[in-house]
Amino acid sequence: MTKYTAAVAGATGYAGGELLRLLLNHPQIEIGAVTAAKSAGSRLGEHHPHLVPLAQREVEPTDADHLAGHDIVFLALPHGASGAIAEQLGDDILVVDCAADHRLVDPAKWQQYYGSDHHGSWPYGLPELPGQREKLAGSKRIAVPGCNPTASTLALLPAVRAGLINTDDVVVALATAPSGAGKKLAVTYLAAEIMGSATPYQVGGIHRHTPEMEQNLAACGADDPKVSFTPMLVPMARGILATCTAKLSDPSIGAEDVYAAYQRSYAEEPFVHLLPQGVWPQTQATIGANTAHLQATVDPHTGRLVAIAAIDNLAKGTAGGAIQCTNIALGLEETLGLTTIGVAP
Amino acid sequence: MTKYTAAVAGATGYAGGELLRLLLNHPQIEIGAVTAAKSAGSRLGEHHPHLVPLAQREVEPTDADHLAGHDIVFLALPHGASGAIAEQLGDDILVVDCAADHRLVDPAKWQQYYGSDHHGSWPYGLPELPGQREKLAGSKRIAVPGCNPTASTLALLPAVRAGLINTDDVVVALATAPSGAGKKLAVTYLAAEIMGSATPYQVGGIHRHTPEMEQNLAACGADDPKVSFTPMLVPMARGILATCTAKLSDPSIGAEDVYAAYQRSYAEEPFVHLLPQGVWPQTQATIGANTAHLQATVDPHTGRLVAIAAIDNLAKGTAGGAIQCTNIALGLEETLGLTTIGVAP
Amino acid sequence: MTKYTAAVAGATGYAGGELLRLLLNHPQIEIGAVTAAKSAGSRLGEHHPHLVPLAQREVEPTDADHLAGHDIVFLALPHGASGAIAEQLGDDILVVDCAADHRLVDPAKWQQYYGSDHHGSWPYGLPELPGQREKLAGSKRIAVPGCNPTASTLALLPAVRAGLINTDDVVVALATAPSGAGKKLAVTYLAAEIMGSATPYQVGGIHRHTPEMEQNLAACGADDPKVSFTPMLVPMARGILATCTAKLSDPSIGAEDVYAAYQRSYAEEPFVHLLPQGVWPQTQATIGANTAHLQATVDPHTGRLVAIAAIDNLAKGTAGGAIQCTNIALGLEETLGLTTIGVAP
Amino acid sequence: MTKYTAAVAGATGYAGGELLRLLLNHPQIEIGAVTAAKSAGSRLGEHHPHLVPLAQREVEPTDADHLAGHDIVFLALPHGASGAIAEQLGDDILVVDCAADHRLVDPAKWQQYYGSDHHGSWPYGLPELPGQREKLAGSKRIAVPGCNPTASTLALLPAVRAGLINTDDVVVALATAPSGAGKKLAVTYLAAEIMGSATPYQVGGIHRHTPEMEQNLAACGADDPKVSFTPMLVPMARGILATCTAKLSDPSIGAEDVYAAYQRSYAEEPFVHLLPQGVWPQTQATIGANTAHLQATVDPHTGRLVAIAAIDNLAKGTAGGAIQCTNIALGLEETLGLTTIGVAP
Repeated sequence: MTKYTAAVAGATGYAGGELLRLLLNHPQIEIGAVTAAKSAGSRLGEHHPHLVPLAQREVEPTDADHLAGHDIVFLALPHGASGAIAEQLGDDILVVDCAADHRLVDPAKWQQYYGSDHHGSWPYGLPELPGQREKLAGSKRIAVPGCNPTASTLALLPAVRAGLINTDDVVVALATAPSGAGKKLAVTYLAAEIMGSATPYQVGGIHRHTPEMEQNLAACGADDPKVSFTPMLVPMARGILATCTAKLSDPSIGAEDVYAAYQRSYAEEPFVHLLPQGVWPQTQATIGANTAHLQATVDPHTGRLVAIAAIDNLAKGTAGGAIQCTNIALGLEETLGLTTIGVAP
Repeated sequence: MTKYTAAVAGATGYAGGELLRLLLNHPQIEIGAVTAAKSAGSRLGEHHPHLVPLAQREVEPTDADHLAGHDIVFLALPHGASGAIAEQLGDDILVVDCAADHRLVDPAKWQQYYGSDHHGSWPYGLPELPGQREKLAGSKRIAVPGCNPTASTLALLPAVRAGLINTDDVVVALATAPSGAGKKLAVTYLAAEIMGSATPYQVGGIHRHTPEMEQNLAACGADDPKVSFTPMLVPMARGILATCTAKLSDPSIGAEDVYAAYQRSYAEEPFVHLLPQGVWPQTQATIGANTAHLQATVDPHTGRLVAIAAIDNLAKGTAGGAIQCTNIALGLEETLGLTTIGVAP
Repeated sequence: MTKYTAAVAGATGYAGGELLRLLLNHPQIEIGAVTAAKSAGSRLGEHHPHLVPLAQREVEPTDADHLAGHDIVFLALPHGASGAIAEQLGDDILVVDCAADHRLVDPAKWQQYYGSDHHGSWPYGLPELPGQREKLAGSKRIAVPGCNPTASTLALLPAVRAGLINTDDVVVALATAPSGAGKKLAVTYLAAEIMGSATPYQVGGIHRHTPEMEQNLAACGADDPKVSFTPMLVPMARGILATCTAKLSDPSIGAEDVYAAYQRSYAEEPFVHLLPQGVWPQTQATIGANTAHLQATVDPHTGRLVAIAAIDNLAKGTAGGAIQCTNIALGLEETLGLTTIGVAP
Repeated sequence: MTKYTAAVAGATGYAGGELLRLLLNHPQIEIGAVTAAKSAGSRLGEHHPHLVPLAQREVEPTDADHLAGHDIVFLALPHGASGAIAEQLGDDILVVDCAADHRLVDPAKWQQYYGSDHHGSWPYGLPELPGQREKLAGSKRIAVPGCNPTASTLALLPAVRAGLINTDDVVVALATAPSGAGKKLAVTYLAAEIMGSATPYQVGGIHRHTPEMEQNLAACGADDPKVSFTPMLVPMARGILATCTAKLSDPSIGAEDVYAAYQRSYAEEPFVHLLPQGVWPQTQATIGANTAHLQATVDPHTGRLVAIAAIDNLAKGTAGGAIQCTNIALGLEETLGLTTIGVAP
């Protein structure tokens, strides 16, 4: 059995910690260097007490010297930092970027939403997109999707592919956990601010995940899709619940048609779980698992489809998705080292 | 100073408890009988340890004998129970019904969503609706709005009144607290199910608050409005965050136009607080207060207005709104006994 | 009716916000300057969206110039900062210090636990201590107790006064909310760290509230008391639950004796609520209120008394207690502007 | 590789769900019948949406007919129900009882705390107790410990074995999650009651886990130990934090002696993780894992040892511990199918 070595850059953050947690269960990947910027020199146990087998590992600096020499490098760095590092890593190394830097294909969109120069785009790590596994197989560069685009794309993909909805006016309202912001030290993310409160942020079409969602809907076949996206921060450590609605393309489409389309799209997907009709997702059921729970129906009253997805933002939304794509890129079994079973309650 | 006496039926539940908490601060209302169905004979302190001044009060049975003889009767009963009780209470008693029974004007809508005979409609207790204060003044019967319709109506009212949006396709996605379901003993509402999880319920146009929202938008001037409503249960004891979007009626409408319309609508409203432009509501800021915090803007990318309201579902969403309307009905200062200041963090 | 003016220094933090929230309800105190160090120049609404009536207030710098000219100055500053400011404020100004600086009488204890020079001690703001109201009446300097000492002292006071326990080996284990740490930007206080987790801190007799608890038990009549104190951080925005146990001084003491002693001690206390026998406190019942909920009993099996208190750390534990003492110092009704009714659920 | 089949009785509850979650990862145990009392006939997916691979399994009635024919039967039933079922299961079946029924050796203690007839005692499933693995190896009956006794025994065991503390006056104050009560439908366990609140229960030596803790300390060598036990319910779905203190047996014992004793006791234990000196446990780090995180020190000020353990009440505290013992009883690798890595944040 071939063994691969992996370095994790940004190992002390939440995405880095989740990558390490999942890699500890991966039978064919061994954890090599764990690196960080500010906390180089500390022990990993100080940052992630749950990762007992790695407690004594020394955190090394994030630079090409420490990352090179591995088969795989996972980058869990702040947006904007991946490009420079990646350029210093050879083409023989599989580089999996959890940041946004290489997700968007259109430089103009990147410029508009991120306000900096485009670093180019890498194969996009959402294997459930049509034809995407082929692009990921053998690739040496992977751009891991944003957690919100993963949830909302999976919720809408079958409807778009089957032509069930108008994609020029999709509405996504999404409840998300503060771990999505990483260990950012800001009053907004303090426990006393979050517990017992819900609040939206980046409202009015300005959230950077908007063009990424639209790019994904286009990849499903939509022509110039438009998404109105409103995220809300709610008091849970992990999880995303994405409520997605759009006008039906034809008023005669019924709930049964919709459910059948979702069944068809996801029948073979190992990590997408369509719930029995009438049962709606709970984020709790996905915690720690590389899975999306889905349900969809029709609101005949307004002629809209309503599709809702629950994921763990750190698992299927980031680190789990990253490892799923890594498996594909390396030609391994896609499900290796990943679980579909959440930790609930 | 005139003093009124008030009985509270359903006093042991969450809405009943909040009514009592607020009434304890009301300078012109004295608490009379506190009644309940199953727990008659117990002490109120067993159900509401926070209501120390009422701890020794005996809970009496909910029937006309115990409720009559007060100036005001607040009904915080399960849906369907108010009608029969109210009929036994004289026309000289102000009856304020926190249940749904008398909210809907259209018997057909009632029949469709509630599946039972219509009990007729009472003056609707949302004073912020156009012309509504006049209908409430002197009234002896008041139907307190549902908590979700209160939040979403207040979020949309200025846009509808100013003709800024198309009202035939309004989307409301709303995060709400489990206290909205009362002390219902069901697995769904157990702490271990709710903490760390978000989940939608009654999806696809079937939630009973849908026709109530539409009735309210019509009261604001919308012609045959349609609302696609999706509620989500999130882990907080109190609070509603309502995200409301609709297509702009004219693509040239900008964020400044929207904000100006909201300012005009609510300039004189004592319990609606439009936040400074760019600041979005937190439910936390409204806890315990009879207040709605609001913000609205335009998503130029999709041509949609986005308006978001935060309220405390038990306060402005139920008991606070009830007392605000009681003040109006009795000819008292509308703000008497109510605060606009939440308990945060 | 005399009106007093009050400045609040450290107004942007949690203690400062709670002082302002309560002062807005105080009929004889008007809010003057609101000051802070780093955020001078900002609007108060940016920091405390729940304090709507003060939203437009400009935050001024914390210095003697801005604080002087008020009848009362509340200091809600980091420990160590109060002394220098207080010295610049005239003896005619009532200075109420929410920090630790002036709580400990013994300079050696101060030096041992705080590692800096002692600033002297001020009348200690726990009116429930024997003879303490006399010391506070007319005082121009008040040291507000720590939130943990308030909870544990109130739990133990009747037992100590009645000689029911040995005070040389008191054990206090206390669950507390992260708002007690203020808006401190540290990973420990991030929402994702706190939600779904309980963790102790400053274990092994090193917490600075230890000598303060012992000083209080001595003030109740204990001879050289010793407290083993272990605080735990739990996932709630506000609240302290203090579990206090000590060996009974005589094995024949029973639960009835204990309850009777607690009744006697607190019969006249407006802000201490002894629950009915057999009912134990919930922190929820005290949120926002200047109240402590108490219960005590005997564990005959081990010969220990168990006494448990719940308070809101920001209310009775800090800002409420500060205003209660201010009322006493000014000769006002002690309960003015304060409530005993919590916001629950 | 031998495969064993296991039935789970009480499969629809939290303990049953956690058993199934862990068994799904066990390489040598296959899940057979899943049974319940009231919900027989339903699908498992209705109760445990996170257990996707078992979603279609039909829940069968809990009776000997459905449980017989397996190699292993896990009983996750209400207290008092296990005895009758177990008697109908042959001696060749390994019966693992997660309820209290067979934990206590002393019939008088059982009678005193449970008020019913003693069902006899089975080998006690805490392998970390001295000599306990020998008793579990090959056994056909195992009594899984209570979650609170597991946490507090692991916290105190090294101190008792090394004679570091007086065991006649041990104090345990423990924060615990509501999932420990199972899916019990009572107001106490509603989300709105638990979120934002901490409350003690069964105070004063009456909690049924008290004699179990004392039995365990005796098994560690204590002579007639006495434990004063106070549990607190705090707002988290899973987790126990047990704070345990006792007088040092000799005032000269220092923190280094204590740490060294803990290191010695647990050096070879696969599921007990002593944290680096000065680092205290977080329950979060243990979620989903069969692990206890520990720290201990001396409070020189009071002459007490303070030892604190964090576990997941459903994992190491119930289902994980049950599987660990099952592995031992069957002669499998003790760690099979279990992880030491928690899901955090």
